[in-house]
Amino acid sequence: MTLGNLLSGPPSIVAAGVDVFSDALRAQGAAVSDVDWRPPGFGDPADLAALALDARRAAANRTAVERVLAAGSVLVDVRPAREVIGLADRTLLHSGPPLTWEAASGPMRGALIGACLFEGWAADVEEAEILLSTGAVTLDPCHHHRTVGPMAGVTSPSMWMWCLEDPVGGGQAFCNLNEGLGKVLRMGAFNEEVQARLRWMRDVLGPVLSQAVRGSIDAGNDPLDVKAVLAQMLQMGDEGHNRNRAGSLMTLRELSPLVVATDAPSSDIAAVLRFIGGNEHFFLNLGMPTAKLAMDAARGVPGSTMVTVMARNGTDFGIRTAGTGDRWFTAPANTPVGLFLGDYGPDDANPDIGDSTIMETYGIGGFAMAAAPAIVRFVGGTVPDALATTERMYQLTLTENPAMAIPIMGFRGSPTGIDVLKVARTGWLPQINTGMAGRIAGTGQVGAGLVQPPQQCFEQALAALAEEVRTV
Amino acid sequence: MTLGNLLSGPPSIVAAGVDVFSDALRAQGAAVSDVDWRPPGFGDPADLAALALDARRAAANRTAVERVLAAGSVLVDVRPAREVIGLADRTLLHSGPPLTWEAASGPMRGALIGACLFEGWAADVEEAEILLSTGAVTLDPCHHHRTVGPMAGVTSPSMWMWCLEDPVGGGQAFCNLNEGLGKVLRMGAFNEEVQARLRWMRDVLGPVLSQAVRGSIDAGNDPLDVKAVLAQMLQMGDEGHNRNRAGSLMTLRELSPLVVATDAPSSDIAAVLRFIGGNEHFFLNLGMPTAKLAMDAARGVPGSTMVTVMARNGTDFGIRTAGTGDRWFTAPANTPVGLFLGDYGPDDANPDIGDSTIMETYGIGGFAMAAAPAIVRFVGGTVPDALATTERMYQLTLTENPAMAIPIMGFRGSPTGIDVLKVARTGWLPQINTGMAGRIAGTGQVGAGLVQPPQQCFEQALAALAEEVRTV
Repeated sequence: MTLGNLLSGPPSIVAAGVDVFSDALRAQGAAVSDVDWRPPGFGDPADLAALALDARRAAANRTAVERVLAAGSVLVDVRPAREVIGLADRTLLHSGPPLTWEAASGPMRGALIGACLFEGWAADVEEAEILLSTGAVTLDPCHHHRTVGPMAGVTSPSMWMWCLEDPVGGGQAFCNLNEGLGKVLRMGAFNEEVQARLRWMRDVLGPVLSQAVRGSIDAGNDPLDVKAVLAQMLQMGDEGHNRNRAGSLMTLRELSPLVVATDAPSSDIAAVLRFIGGNEHFFLNLGMPTAKLAMDAARGVPGSTMVTVMARNGTDFGIRTAGTGDRWFTAPANTPVGLFLGDYGPDDANPDIGDSTIMETYGIGGFAMAAAPAIVRFVGGTVPDALATTERMYQLTLTENPAMAIPIMGFRGSPTGIDVLKVARTGWLPQINTGMAGRIAGTGQVGAGLVQPPQQCFEQALAALAEEVRTV
Repeated sequence: MTLGNLLSGPPSIVAAGVDVFSDALRAQGAAVSDVDWRPPGFGDPADLAALALDARRAAANRTAVERVLAAGSVLVDVRPAREVIGLADRTLLHSGPPLTWEAASGPMRGALIGACLFEGWAADVEEAEILLSTGAVTLDPCHHHRTVGPMAGVTSPSMWMWCLEDPVGGGQAFCNLNEGLGKVLRMGAFNEEVQARLRWMRDVLGPVLSQAVRGSIDAGNDPLDVKAVLAQMLQMGDEGHNRNRAGSLMTLRELSPLVVATDAPSSDIAAVLRFIGGNEHFFLNLGMPTAKLAMDAARGVPGSTMVTVMARNGTDFGIRTAGTGDRWFTAPANTPVGLFLGDYGPDDANPDIGDSTIMETYGIGGFAMAAAPAIVRFVGGTVPDALATTERMYQLTLTENPAMAIPIMGFRGSPTGIDVLKVARTGWLPQINTGMAGRIAGTGQVGAGLVQPPQQCFEQALAALAEEVRTV
C-alpha cells in the first residue's frame, strides 16, 4: 500500500493485544485483523530454554502438585512455642526471609520490642532495643522452624502454638494464636493494651484451648480437620487470607463444646468464647499452617519449578521453589495499595509483611478472590476485578485444587502451584491480598490491600533453576 | 415473496423470542431481523388496565416497599407458644393457608399427629387421628397468629418460640425452634426419636435459650440484631432459605457466651452448643420471623399490588397482597423438583409445604440465589441458573433491598416486593427453593429443590385487586 492510496481506499485495520480496540472498531462495522500479542515476560532466553527442555520438569512438577493436593491438616495440640519447637530463651521468630535488626522495618521492630517486653527480657523499650541491636536476642525466620506467622510473625517462647499435622505425609506445622485486629503485636504495636492481651492469651486462652483440644483427642474424638474447614470457607465467601469470617465461626462451632468441657472457671470460658467470636481473623492462624503443611510436602523435588514459599519480613520479599529447596530468592518488598482504616493513608503503610502469603502459595487468598467477592470492601478493587484475578492466576499455576472448589466458577478448583516458568513466560505476577501495618513501630494496622511480589524474586529463582538444570 | 423466488433468492430471516436462534444464524453469517417477543402473561385485559390506570398504585406500592425496607428485627425473648401467642390447649398451628384434617397431606398429618403425642393429648397415633378428624383439636394457620413455621409449621402450646420485634414499626413475630434435618416433626416424622428431641427442646434447649436471651437483655445488653445477621449471611454464601450455614454459625457466636452464663449444668450447656452447632438450618427459624416482620409492616396498604405472604400447607399454596389485606388467594400447590436424599425419588415428594416462602416474599431465598451459588449442590440446578434466577426476579419486583446486598452482583440489593401486576404482565412466577417432605406421614425429609407458586394464586389476586379498584 502506497501513501497515495492509504487515504483513498478503505483502511485495513490490524489490532494487537487487548480486545477492546478491535471490539470497538468491529462495533462500528469495520473489518479488523487481530494479532494475538502480549507484553513479553522476563528471564534470559537461554534459561527459559534450559527449563523448557528439562526432561525432568513435567514429572517433577506433577510430583510436587500431587503432594500439595494430597496433604491434609488436622489440629492435634496447642502448646507453648518453647515446648513445641524448642524455641530457646532470647530467641524470637519473625516472618519472611532472614532479617537483621538493622534492616528491620518499623512494624517488625515494634513487634520484636513488644515480644522482649512480653517475655520480661527487657523492662522498657530502650532495654529491648539494646538487646535486639546487640545481638543479645537471636532472630530467626518462622519458616526455618516449620512455623508461619502473620504480619511481623513474631513468635516468642511463651506464646501458645496451634500444632497441626498432615495425616497423609506426616508433616507438622505450627502457628501462634491470632490476637485480633487493630493495635496488635503482629502489626507492630506493643503498648500495654497489647501486652495485657498477650498475657491473657498466655495465661487463659492458651491453657483453655490446650485443655479443650487435648481433652477431646484424649477422649478418643477425631482431631479437627482444618483442611475441611478451609474448603468449606470457599463455599461461604471467604478466601482464607483476608476473609476468615466463616472459618472463624466454624472453628468456634467446633471448639465451643470442647471449651465448655474444660475445668476453667465459667467466666474464663465465656471470655474465651467472646474472644474467638469477636475475631473474624481467628482462623487465619489455623489456615496458614494448613497451607504450610501442603507446601512443605513439596519441599525438595529436583527439577520442579513450583513455588513452595512466598513470605515477606517487611523489608524483603522472599520465595523458595521445590527444585531449589531451602534457598531464598529475595528482593525489596512492594507496598500494598488498598483501603485504609480511619485517617490513615498510603504514606502510613509499611512495605509488604508476613508469612500469610503461604495462602496464595497454596492457591487460595488472592488466588481465590472469586470465591469471596465481598472482600473488595476490605482490600479494594471491584467484584469483576476479583473474578478476573482468579481467572488470571490459572495462567500462572500448574493445577487446580479440587478440594478448594470455587462455587461461582462452577466449582472449579482454585489455581494452585505457582510455576516460576509460567510467571516468567507471561510476565504476570502472583496476586496477593494482605493486611497493611503502619510503617512506624507501635502503630498497628492501618489498612488492607493488594500487592504483588517483586519480579526480581522470580528472576533469581528462574536463573537458579536453570543453573540447576545445567549442573545435573 | 412468492413461492417461486422463495428458493431461488437469498432468504430473509426473522427470529422471534429467545436470542439463541438468531445468534446461531448470525454465527453462520446470515442476516437476521429480531422481533422482541415473549409469551403473553396472564390476566383479564380489563383487570390489567384497571390496575395500570389506578392512580393510587404507584404511591401505595412505594409506601408498601418503604415499610418493608425500613422494618428491623431484634430477638427480644424466648417463650412457650402457650404464653407468647396465648395458644390454647388442643389448638395447633400449621403452615400455609387454612386447612382441614381431611384436606391435609401426609407430612402435615404426620406433624399434627406428632404434636398431639408430644402434648400428651393422645396416647397413640389412633387416638391422635380421632382427635384431629373429629375436630377435638382446632387447626389454625401460623400466619393468623403473627407466626411462621417451616414445612408443616406445626406449633403446639408447649413449644418454645423465638420472639422477635421490629424496633421501627413495633411489630412482633414468632417462630418455634428448628429441630435440624432428617426425621423431624416439621417434615412429618413423629416417631420416638422425634418425640425425644421435642421433649429435650422443651425441657432443656428452650429454658436455656430463654435464660440466655432474657439474661443478656436484663443485664442491659442490646438484643441480637437478626436483620443484621441476615444481611451478613448474603455476604457469606447463604441465601437465607435453604442455606443458613453462616447465619446459624453467627447465631451460635452470639448465643454461646450467653448460654455459658446461664446456671444450667455444664453438660446441658455443652449439649445446647452442640445442638446449635450441628444444625445448619438453626437460623432459618430466626430468619423467617424477620421476613414476616418486614412483610407484616406492609399489611393493608389500599391500592398496593405487592405480595405480603406466600405460604403453603402441603395441599394448597396461598398468597396475600398489601392491597387486599388478610384475604388468601389459594390454589393446589406444585411439587418441587430437585435433589433427593438417599434412595428417595420424585415419587416420594409431597407437594410444596411451609411458611418459609416468606423468605422469597421478602426478596431473599430463591430470589437471592446469586449470593449463594453453592446452594445448587442442595436444591439442584447450575450456578449460571442461580445467577439468572436472581436477575429474572428483578423483573417481578418493585424495588431492591440495599440492606440485603448481593456481592457477586456488585452489591446490588436483592429483588424485593413481588408485584402481582408485574407477575401477570411477564407471566414469570416467583422462584422458590425449598425442602421436600416425604408424602407419606412419618417419612421426614426426602430432599430439597426448586418450585414455583401456581399461577392461579396470582390470577385470583389480580382479579381481586382490580375489583377493589372498581369499588373504591
